[in-house]
Amino acid sequence: MSDVDFYAARMDRAARAATQEGLAGLIVTPGPDLVWLCGYGPPATSERLTALLLAPGRRPQLIVPQLERPDAERAPGAGALAITGWTDGEDPYAAVAKLLDGHGRYGVSDNAWALHLLALQRTCPGTAYGALTEALPMMRAVKDAYEVERLAAAGAAADATYETIVDLRFAGRRESEVAADLARLLRENGHSQVDFTIVGSGPNGANPHHEAGERVIEDGDMVVLDFGGLKDGYGSDTTRTVHVGEPSSEERKVHDLVREAQQAAFEAVRPGIACQEIDRVARQVIRRAGYGEYFIHRTGHGIGVTTHEPPYMVEGEHLPLVPGMCFSIEPGIYLPGRFGVRIEDIVLCTETGARRLNNTARELRIVA
Amino acid sequence: MSDVDFYAARMDRAARAATQEGLAGLIVTPGPDLVWLCGYGPPATSERLTALLLAPGRRPQLIVPQLERPDAERAPGAGALAITGWTDGEDPYAAVAKLLDGHGRYGVSDNAWALHLLALQRTCPGTAYGALTEALPMMRAVKDAYEVERLAAAGAAADATYETIVDLRFAGRRESEVAADLARLLRENGHSQVDFTIVGSGPNGANPHHEAGERVIEDGDMVVLDFGGLKDGYGSDTTRTVHVGEPSSEERKVHDLVREAQQAAFEAVRPGIACQEIDRVARQVIRRAGYGEYFIHRTGHGIGVTTHEPPYMVEGEHLPLVPGMCFSIEPGIYLPGRFGVRIEDIVLCTETGARRLNNTARELRIVA
Repeated sequence: MSDVDFYAARMDRAARAATQEGLAGLIVTPGPDLVWLCGYGPPATSERLTALLLAPGRRPQLIVPQLERPDAERAPGAGALAITGWTDGEDPYAAVAKLLDGHGRYGVSDNAWALHLLALQRTCPGTAYGALTEALPMMRAVKDAYEVERLAAAGAAADATYETIVDLRFAGRRESEVAADLARLLRENGHSQVDFTIVGSGPNGANPHHEAGERVIEDGDMVVLDFGGLKDGYGSDTTRTVHVGEPSSEERKVHDLVREAQQAAFEAVRPGIACQEIDRVARQVIRRAGYGEYFIHRTGHGIGVTTHEPPYMVEGEHLPLVPGMCFSIEPGIYLPGRFGVRIEDIVLCTETGARRLNNTARELRIVA
Repeated sequence: MSDVDFYAARMDRAARAATQEGLAGLIVTPGPDLVWLCGYGPPATSERLTALLLAPGRRPQLIVPQLERPDAERAPGAGALAITGWTDGEDPYAAVAKLLDGHGRYGVSDNAWALHLLALQRTCPGTAYGALTEALPMMRAVKDAYEVERLAAAGAAADATYETIVDLRFAGRRESEVAADLARLLRENGHSQVDFTIVGSGPNGANPHHEAGERVIEDGDMVVLDFGGLKDGYGSDTTRTVHVGEPSSEERKVHDLVREAQQAAFEAVRPGIACQEIDRVARQVIRRAGYGEYFIHRTGHGIGVTTHEPPYMVEGEHLPLVPGMCFSIEPGIYLPGRFGVRIEDIVLCTETGARRLNNTARELRIVA
């Protein structure tokens, strides 16, 4: 299939799915949805409106600033689009309004700027809007074989990064130095974009979103390593927690518990089960051992052309798992002021259960 | 003044300005407004809501994901904030709703995600919203002495980058190689973030937003160099167009014309004049010479903690210039399939006229 046919088919499926959900169409602004649907990413996301309009039975329309038109025309899916340029001083929202059903409800990219959404609401007061991931949570959630292959390759690259980092020195170096190594290794392993390189040593590990600071890692530290980015347009995201020198029995116990929770959630994956069940299974293991209050985030998130997307493994998410969904399973325990442990793999839901896209050992690794 | 007092005063001024514009308050999500108001930038912008609520006569409220709370508490303005954490599975919009006037109109960050805005509109159906730059275009537009100093330093760093790049080789190298040099030099000159490094050679220069591609630069090419980023939190953005070897008389003529337009717009800057006048002055010079149809973008944009912000020098922008405003003046002529020329300086509006924050020579520079 040519690029143009490939993107045309994707846009057509999205427009049909929108109709099934009672939407008049989709309005997609720069970001992962736009890249996924037509292969176009503008040079920068700015206050100048770029928007793809999908409506069933109609050629997809891309509205772009005139000066970015040559970029849009080079996008792999451009041949499937009707491209309209607008010039500074013109009203791009009026141009979009002409293409809308004045009383329709539209799905709009989650990350569309409020500036643009408010202007559309003002220009077309009869229209209504819903966030794309809420209106069509499944649009990008089920990966085809090509996408699974890309995600597996990104996972393997992250695994190779981990296998190299654990042989490097930890004690005596700053978290930021280890983080710089992680970023370098991800790139050496084929990543074009590094999204996060969390190195949480000792008490910093108890803050799940601590990035990497100037703390010098010491002998006796637990160190949470959580890193990922994009390789060939698809995401990686894995976490392992290592220990500098010999761990205490409590550190071993907490690590074993997180590993057990991660394994239980992995084993619970099968088509038809609700996302929240994956969260409950992991949480129950940790709660029963008395650490429930220290597992302070959801169990996982989808991954694809972004590193965070639906489906979310969180209480309240009733969406059933479907073969082809790829998501993280990443329980953790965070003991304030002391240390944290998190173990994360990306997994693929298959017809028969789950397949891991990260495959490094999950046992507590001792580093120097 | 302590950091906390500094940010408290800024937030208080913004809340008062909001009242004067008939707003019940401001809702600020991650990005430049949030950094500017309270010094906080979360580790990543995501689907998890982070929002600062400013309302007159009330302590600023910051709603953050619980797991990012430690990051928020370390922000320089944190001492002026009441910080509330929310946990995965809770409804953060309900938490915000409790703090809102149910019938109030709020200014919301331009780049707030549609996901969040739609959830607020749904949770608080009596509230109304306007984009921050439209509701309060002046909030960040007038720079204080400290900010002007930072912008001038960023401009000087961009100038130093230019002075170095013009002594390097152009002919025989790819645009992407020159772009990599620009990025390296910006960092060497103190930039922490590089936002764009446009190298548009020959026909590529006729696409104003062409970034840098694999085209090999040749003798006889015009080359548009447009680069900038952030240094110590403030933006740089400058453009010079150079020529590889001797230019033709037409190339000289077009370059002279753009330089004349840039100079005329510069000389037109004074307090009280409408932004659109700056655009008109530059455009008139180019139009009178018969090149009007080839000047296909606005004349300029504000700059501060971002490289693109109000005020915009564009037809239809009636906002009057005020001493302390900093913005670009960047006319250009783009001859499709042939070459482009753009000349850009950041300027400061002063009581008596304009002061340039970029000061490299604007005459056509011959490179090798």
